[in-house]
Amino acid sequence: MLLLRRCRGLTLLSTRRLPVAPAVASCAVRLRSSSAEDQGSYQRAHRPGWRHAVAGLLAGTGAVLAYGLHQHKAEQEAAYPIFSQEEVTSHRSLQDGVWVTYKGGVYDITEFVAMHPGGDKILLAAGGALEPFWALYAVHNQEHVLEMLSEYKVGELNAEDLKKQKTMQTLDPYSSDPERHPVLRINNLKPFNAEPPPEILSDSFITPSAFFFKRNHLPVPQVDPATYLLQVEGLPGGLLTLSLEELKTRFPKHTVTATLQCAGNRRSEMNAVKQVKGLNWGIAAISNATWSGARLRDVLLAAGYGPDVARRAGHVQFEGLDKDVTGTTYGASIPLNKAVSEEGDVLLAYEMNGADLPADHGYPVRVVVPGVVGARNVKWLGKIIVSADESSSHWQQNDYKGFSPGTDWDTVNFKSAPAIQELPVQSAITAPADGAVVDRSSEELTVKGYAWSGGGREVVRVDVSLDGGKTWQVAQIRSSEKGQAPEGTPPTGRAWAWKLWEITAPLPPGAKELKIVCKAVDNSYNMQPDTVAPIWNLRGVLSNAWHRVNVKIREDEREE
Amino acid sequence: MLLLRRCRGLTLLSTRRLPVAPAVASCAVRLRSSSAEDQGSYQRAHRPGWRHAVAGLLAGTGAVLAYGLHQHKAEQEAAYPIFSQEEVTSHRSLQDGVWVTYKGGVYDITEFVAMHPGGDKILLAAGGALEPFWALYAVHNQEHVLEMLSEYKVGELNAEDLKKQKTMQTLDPYSSDPERHPVLRINNLKPFNAEPPPEILSDSFITPSAFFFKRNHLPVPQVDPATYLLQVEGLPGGLLTLSLEELKTRFPKHTVTATLQCAGNRRSEMNAVKQVKGLNWGIAAISNATWSGARLRDVLLAAGYGPDVARRAGHVQFEGLDKDVTGTTYGASIPLNKAVSEEGDVLLAYEMNGADLPADHGYPVRVVVPGVVGARNVKWLGKIIVSADESSSHWQQNDYKGFSPGTDWDTVNFKSAPAIQELPVQSAITAPADGAVVDRSSEELTVKGYAWSGGGREVVRVDVSLDGGKTWQVAQIRSSEKGQAPEGTPPTGRAWAWKLWEITAPLPPGAKELKIVCKAVDNSYNMQPDTVAPIWNLRGVLSNAWHRVNVKIREDEREE
Repeated sequence: MLLLRRCRGLTLLSTRRLPVAPAVASCAVRLRSSSAEDQGSYQRAHRPGWRHAVAGLLAGTGAVLAYGLHQHKAEQEAAYPIFSQEEVTSHRSLQDGVWVTYKGGVYDITEFVAMHPGGDKILLAAGGALEPFWALYAVHNQEHVLEMLSEYKVGELNAEDLKKQKTMQTLDPYSSDPERHPVLRINNLKPFNAEPPPEILSDSFITPSAFFFKRNHLPVPQVDPATYLLQVEGLPGGLLTLSLEELKTRFPKHTVTATLQCAGNRRSEMNAVKQVKGLNWGIAAISNATWSGARLRDVLLAAGYGPDVARRAGHVQFEGLDKDVTGTTYGASIPLNKAVSEEGDVLLAYEMNGADLPADHGYPVRVVVPGVVGARNVKWLGKIIVSADESSSHWQQNDYKGFSPGTDWDTVNFKSAPAIQELPVQSAITAPADGAVVDRSSEELTVKGYAWSGGGREVVRVDVSLDGGKTWQVAQIRSSEKGQAPEGTPPTGRAWAWKLWEITAPLPPGAKELKIVCKAVDNSYNMQPDTVAPIWNLRGVLSNAWHRVNVKIREDEREE
Repeated sequence: MLLLRRCRGLTLLSTRRLPVAPAVASCAVRLRSSSAEDQGSYQRAHRPGWRHAVAGLLAGTGAVLAYGLHQHKAEQEAAYPIFSQEEVTSHRSLQDGVWVTYKGGVYDITEFVAMHPGGDKILLAAGGALEPFWALYAVHNQEHVLEMLSEYKVGELNAEDLKKQKTMQTLDPYSSDPERHPVLRINNLKPFNAEPPPEILSDSFITPSAFFFKRNHLPVPQVDPATYLLQVEGLPGGLLTLSLEELKTRFPKHTVTATLQCAGNRRSEMNAVKQVKGLNWGIAAISNATWSGARLRDVLLAAGYGPDVARRAGHVQFEGLDKDVTGTTYGASIPLNKAVSEEGDVLLAYEMNGADLPADHGYPVRVVVPGVVGARNVKWLGKIIVSADESSSHWQQNDYKGFSPGTDWDTVNFKSAPAIQELPVQSAITAPADGAVVDRSSEELTVKGYAWSGGGREVVRVDVSLDGGKTWQVAQIRSSEKGQAPEGTPPTGRAWAWKLWEITAPLPPGAKELKIVCKAVDNSYNMQPDTVAPIWNLRGVLSNAWHRVNVKIREDEREE
């Protein structure tokens, strides 16, 4: 459904002519989207005064408005002037105006820059074509985004320059992405983001790589292992460059079983409270694997790390080989003490579950930072930089941070919150599914799920309630595969792997519905919050309230 | 109020004669107490079948029962045989019977041993007088405990032996306890347990030592600094013995600002849900001080700690010089990696807030384990033992652990839960007080409080609601004294000191009452749970739900 609001009402549509009057162009169109991630969801409310207009649209006038817009466009079609690419390219700043082209149209988006959900990045497209950016950030490929763009149209590109553009744009940056297993539930195709069905997640302590949730920010890069080089910067030894072979042979191979979780896992529950910006993840943006590789600590020591560095540096930055059309790579950083600690277990992993890393998980090398949010586990690792500063990347500075439920896009200050590193205690019910029906004749019900906590804090208990949280039972926890020897208690502070849990309980007599709830406790005795609304945040991250699943009990028909 | 239940009703009272029939003696008396700590509250329900009897008592028949008991005692007074101390002393085991004396009476408590809330410790009193134990564990000095004891009376001690006993018992083990500031709110006098009034707690980033909450488990020992010796055991160097002077001169002096919190802080809120066992702490069993001393790590290294030890050992045990009449000392342990980590900042502290440790806080030396529950910060430190095992002390094994709200004293298995070490994220409102009245004419309200998290996790945000949690504002946080330079961001994972916070908000128009709530978030983005009941546990520890304070708004009379 198209949800838009318009400056001064519908009457303005027929009076709007070139050049665009600033007062008109600054009116934002507000749109609703459910599949957008970091690059913006186009949901920001930039002009709070317009909220009443939105309410009106929601109440049913949207269709009328949409009709009016289409009519208006048809009337304008012939009226636009023709521009050359050179003229477009001369508009590359807020001073000179910011012009872009899209499918032969020329658009002056100067006034929109400040409202772009993806921030200043939009300026990278100034003076050129939008197509390669929108191919990269597929969130834009929605009808309402095109409608919004049409508001800024100022002309047409000449035929010759349009032809040149099309020749340049034949390559889809995602065309070399790998094949994926069809069972995955896709949240976004380009970049690829998908999670396994919850019911298979808890069937295996180690998640098979094909089912491991995928969370890519950019196209999967093609890396040749023969020519791959890992660069290590910022240490007294100068630049250290390691081939894949050197990484494998110069340093001992360590194996760690570690769970990775996306900061946005369970975001859909926050969306149910109030719309947030980000992919609508269910409960399965979390998986567990064994990772093998060199210890980051060992590589940093080989590159000259020592007490002198510890005094001046505070962070280890990672750059991926995945990049956007401007050459900007994915990036993140972790605190230095996590990187160099013997007990941090940070790996430069080249194997996942005993085989080479799959393309989607960072082939040939990724960082695995156990206990830390997925976003810092940089894939397709190209560069390591020991620094006094955090990564300056968008994902470290202006994303993946938590805020108060009272903070909105008008008031948010990304500098005020720390970048997410360790994640809070988490658990969810993987079976039964919400809305499932259980026969009374089965007499009992088995509830299954996972539990995990960040920072190496071991989950020590999972409480399960069948009555919405009034009474609680303790679930059975397992820390390894069925049939395998249990792994035993991990060393204090190094419990990197999740726990799977289950409980079989008799169906309560007389109950027609079960309100199943789970909550986990870690060995710092942190608990999950009861409800979602008080931890709601505008990016929909850190969604770790009690997980709730409702199940109906069907009475045996013979007894009825 | 006396709350007791009796085997087979009142009629049995008159039929009970020596020797005590096991079936009768095994009937437990159930009592209610609100000031008991570790040694037992006499609240355990050992015979679930008797709960109906208790319910009856609660409904008002208790007074009748108590009257009956007194009558019965008067009738029996003359009927008891006389025993010598030697005869009493011959009953020191479950096989021979467990006899004790109290104020000249002789009691066969064999059948009570299994029901003793304080566990097997009761056997230490076998064959002798109860008085010195009850002087130590003041929980026993309540009328209903005497009533219970009277059920087990089997005779009288002869006059000569009674005289000898009295001579031995003139010394109160608490007679040398130090003077305390009268502003402290005393939860228990012997051992001394007290907290400051909340309103002065948040007036100072550093809590003055006199106001720092006191939590003693035993009498304060008198330690002569000239002859004090600290023993370090379990390391390749053999036994290391350090005088106070050696501790101060052989090792660099480090200073750490660290908050200590009792596991039972805010227990009163759990008691409000359902009675728990333990001292009824308010919100001020937490304080912040600077501590100076030698690093435990340095002392362990000097005693031969190295990688070999790390492979075989897992814990560092501490023994206090405070002891009970049997010579049992207070004890606890922490994980080895916390003790030896450069970033663990564990101190053998000999100064608090720039002066010698006060007697109540462990003079001359205590362990300060930043980020870890108060109970492991052993005072009056006598011995350090590096070991493969946790401390075997009562306080490490059978106390200071968390359980599910569904676990009761009939089902609890202390082996199933880990000893509390790092504490979960916490915050509370110190002003205004619950029930305060605010004048409408003041127009705005300032809310103040503290926030802290265990494990060195820094509190990064405190959310405050005035409407019971529907809407939230972000409070201002400060990390140092007013007028002092701020301490800045502590190194990652080493935020040992609390944050004080405050927020000044306009009084909401029309509101007659404010439901003030606070909740803190630490840098692992752990949040406090919303409500108390789902984290309730039988020991009333780890009480860290949102803190709630209700305030009334009084309208300006002139306007009414």
